[in-house]
Amino acid sequence: MRPPVAILTEADLRGLVPLDAEAVACVRDAFVALATRAVAMPPILRLDIPEHRGEVDVKTAYVPGLSHFAIKISPGFFGNPAIGLPSTNGMMVVLSATTGLVRALLLDNGWLTDLRTAAAGAVAADALARKDATRAAILGAGMQARMQLRALTLVRPLTQAAVWARDGAKARAFAAEMTDALAIPVTAAATVADATRNADLIVTTTPAERPILTAADVAPGTHVTAMGSDAGHKNEIAPGLIAAAHYVADRLSQTRRMGELHHSPLAARNFPELGQILAGQAPGRTGDMQITLADLTGTGIQDTAIATLALIRADAAGAGQTFTP
Amino acid sequence: MRPPVAILTEADLRGLVPLDAEAVACVRDAFVALATRAVAMPPILRLDIPEHRGEVDVKTAYVPGLSHFAIKISPGFFGNPAIGLPSTNGMMVVLSATTGLVRALLLDNGWLTDLRTAAAGAVAADALARKDATRAAILGAGMQARMQLRALTLVRPLTQAAVWARDGAKARAFAAEMTDALAIPVTAAATVADATRNADLIVTTTPAERPILTAADVAPGTHVTAMGSDAGHKNEIAPGLIAAAHYVADRLSQTRRMGELHHSPLAARNFPELGQILAGQAPGRTGDMQITLADLTGTGIQDTAIATLALIRADAAGAGQTFTP
Repeated sequence: MRPPVAILTEADLRGLVPLDAEAVACVRDAFVALATRAVAMPPILRLDIPEHRGEVDVKTAYVPGLSHFAIKISPGFFGNPAIGLPSTNGMMVVLSATTGLVRALLLDNGWLTDLRTAAAGAVAADALARKDATRAAILGAGMQARMQLRALTLVRPLTQAAVWARDGAKARAFAAEMTDALAIPVTAAATVADATRNADLIVTTTPAERPILTAADVAPGTHVTAMGSDAGHKNEIAPGLIAAAHYVADRLSQTRRMGELHHSPLAARNFPELGQILAGQAPGRTGDMQITLADLTGTGIQDTAIATLALIRADAAGAGQTFTP
Repeated sequence: MRPPVAILTEADLRGLVPLDAEAVACVRDAFVALATRAVAMPPILRLDIPEHRGEVDVKTAYVPGLSHFAIKISPGFFGNPAIGLPSTNGMMVVLSATTGLVRALLLDNGWLTDLRTAAAGAVAADALARKDATRAAILGAGMQARMQLRALTLVRPLTQAAVWARDGAKARAFAAEMTDALAIPVTAAATVADATRNADLIVTTTPAERPILTAADVAPGTHVTAMGSDAGHKNEIAPGLIAAAHYVADRLSQTRRMGELHHSPLAARNFPELGQILAGQAPGRTGDMQITLADLTGTGIQDTAIATLALIRADAAGAGQTFTP
């Protein structure tokens, strides 16, 4: 009577749901739903454990039309690296949208979050960048920097990329690795300005708490995706660049609280959301000289969408193990 | 490096953590911690899916001194019984309080919630009822009514009990079953007043949306625990009884929003919490003729406490299965 619960590990999920065009389409559809359907996306549940430098976010969203919804648990414990453990982790619980029964436990250690975050970068660039954009600049040289660059290749035929990071050695390692992986020249730049000088596409992926990218660094016609900020104290983009750009939020109520917009004097203004642009409810790029700026803080609809995709693929492949609770 | 995740089923957990004195002590300690330590208990995350008559609550709390904390997922889908499924379900994810790593998945189908709810009833009665209380009345005849009566036997030597329920057949079934189970006379009463007339202890366990228990039904010296309300539209206790009683909340910020206090004109007043009374920070019962009233809405500290107890016992017993995520 009570259906079994599927349990999928990180290895299962990396195999089942790679960063590909279908993952991007899945996240794109979720943003369209956010603009066009009666999505339910409550505020994030946040628990802080300061004595262990820990925090946990719980996100969820119900997207009408999807058979399931995810509840995502994302812990970040910043003393972990000192004891050989990753600072961020996480898992998702997937429930039936019609019965509420737990259908799957996705022990992904954050893989699906990394994936849906990168996919949102591709969705934003595809919606807002010039059609002829081919040159990328990535600020930051971590795991998500790599995934954002890969994601851009799914929506624009990149011919070159530059990377800047505070730690030059990490930027050089990124450049060497991604040159091999993508078979295009990826170079390490000494300054942000050097990295962005010839870019049509810029993605900021850092945990910066003061702006690293200003209007002076961004040529007319460039698209910028800022995905590093997911808390009120983080800030990658100078207010002058927000003022100069066609600004687009993933979720305006969130970017006002914890995105780049949080630090702008324009925060109270109305701005379009990415889903509204995808759904044709608000204008996207209106000219080749316009700077576009997507402020991505991460939303529960992306989690629900990617978890549902994972579950569909797991069922089709007979992957994972099952438990009867 | 990454530690394995334990997976425990409802059957495992029922065996490991029964309703006993240790479970009551565990929940009691959690209430003391709520009053005396820097507990972090964020507001409940709530997702509504009205087209499927569904709702999901997510609760969590960090209790300093406990090695782990729980994130509890409680779905209620009220069309389920029509298709042969239970309307309420649920599970807990248990994380390390020092690293945030997922340590266990408790697929309990709500057992631990039932247990910690009943245990809180015992804690409240033990703290507030007269020492010589021996006669119980239970309003409602469901599963939690049974557990609340059992829980009372752990803190007072009951000699008799009465039960009232809207459905008389269910009350009679309850009476027969609990007479056998507890080896004391348990009788079904035709009215609330009949049930409560000779009671020293009253527990209300119904989903009533209008008061079922008034001041006229409660003799001087009685202790009342109201545990049925966990949402703003639910209401078991008449405002006159709240005004006549020494009122105690499990968590005042919650009972003002979704407990019995929510419906009282006194809701803005300050009242003691159960943990404050247990910790000696506020007076409990001050005389044998006083009516005491505990308003229990359910708190995340109870979940964290019972989940930690379950994990300790599972580790000691080598119970459940493990996964490396």
